[in-house]
Order: sequence, then C-alpha cells, then structure tokens
Amino acid sequence: MKIKVQLRMRIYRDEGIAIGPGKIALLEAIAATGSISAAARQLEMSYRRAWVLVDEMNKALKSPAVVTAAGGSHGGGTALSATGDALVRHYRAAEDASRLAASPDIAAMTRLLAD
Amino acid sequence: MKIKVQLRMRIYRDEGIAIGPGKIALLEAIAATGSISAAARQLEMSYRRAWVLVDEMNKALKSPAVVTAAGGSHGGGTALSATGDALVRHYRAAEDASRLAASPDIAAMTRLLAD
Repeated sequence: MKIKVQLRMRIYRDEGIAIGPGKIALLEAIAATGSISAAARQLEMSYRRAWVLVDEMNKALKSPAVVTAAGGSHGGGTALSATGDALVRHYRAAEDASRLAASPDIAAMTRLLAD
Repeated sequence: MKIKVQLRMRIYRDEGIAIGPGKIALLEAIAATGSISAAARQLEMSYRRAWVLVDEMNKALKSPAVVTAAGGSHGGGTALSATGDALVRHYRAAEDASRLAASPDIAAMTRLLAD
C-alpha cells in the first residue's frame, strides 16, 4: 500500500486566489530558470498562462514578486524580488509546519486504512 | 480586504483519494442526518454520488466508516461506526493543528498582500 498525503494551502483575497500551490511553483521555477518563458516550459503551461499568473500576483501584492532587470551584460533578466523570495519561503515553511503538526493525526488515519 | 485561508488535506492510497474534504464532509452530514440520502441533499449531491463515495471509503478502510442498523423501532438507520467517528475526529484535528502551526507564516504572507 502506497500512501501519499497532500496538503494544499490557498490564500484567497476577496474573490480570487492570491497565493496557492500553482503560483508558488511558478515563482520557484522563475527563480530557478531566470525567465517566465523557461519557467512556463518547465511547468508545461503556456507563456500566456504564466504571464497572467505573475501579473495577478504582482497586482495582489504590496510590491511585485517578479521583477525584470533592464539592460546589463545579460540583456536583462527575470528574478524574484525580496517580496517574491519571502512569499516562497513562508509558503514552504507553512507547508512544512502544517505537515509536521498534522502528522500524528495523519498517522492515526493511515492506520485505519486497509492493507 | 477579506482574506480567507484554505487548507485542504487529502490522503491518497495507491492511485485514488482515500480521505479528503468531500468524503469527510459527507461523513459529518451522515452523522448529523442519520441517512445517506438526507446527507446527499444537505451537500447538494446526488444520492448515487454519495453512495459511491461511502462505498469507496468503506472499501478503503479496515472496517466500514458508515454502517446501517437493520430493523429496530426506527426501521434501521445509517450512522458512523467507531472507525467513521475516528476518521472525522482525526481529520478535523489534523486541520486544526495544521492551521495553528502555519499561522505565523500565513500572517507573514498576508502582510505582503496589498490593502
């Protein structure tokens, strides 16, 4: 028997999802690849979809999560701002803390499952 | 600004979802109403759908979560077994513990959101 526990956290603001697993994964892919288009490819989503998600996030935050540096020897590049970094860090920390805190009850539920 | 945090926990067994928010809500509605059909109405799902979910759960567990008492002055009735009770209790306890443990990081993320 293979057991997998999924914990998904979403922060809703007014009607829409301000922060959720898809947006955090996108921020991480942008940080890793240095571009929205490479991040979109990595996550197998369209560039348009990735751009919309970044735009939604940037608008939902006090300051943008994703910034593009103009010019320079690398001709500009896309990276996370301090806000974007903090968002990813707190989201993953919240997940880890949740999982740890829930683990005794999750173990108890798992023991109720048939072999 | 209205912020809402959703934490969803799902326990997958092999391929399918053995325990998740829909199934737990169904168990709670069965406990409250004493019948699968009344629980289905309360949750605005078809009786067929509710029955399939109960059947899936019962099969995934060492012993059934939902039991039907035969006969008696009330002509039988549907209720949670000790396993069903334990499942609901541990699921809600896991959610509460998760939420509490994640709250400092959730508060930090919330502070990053625009007003």
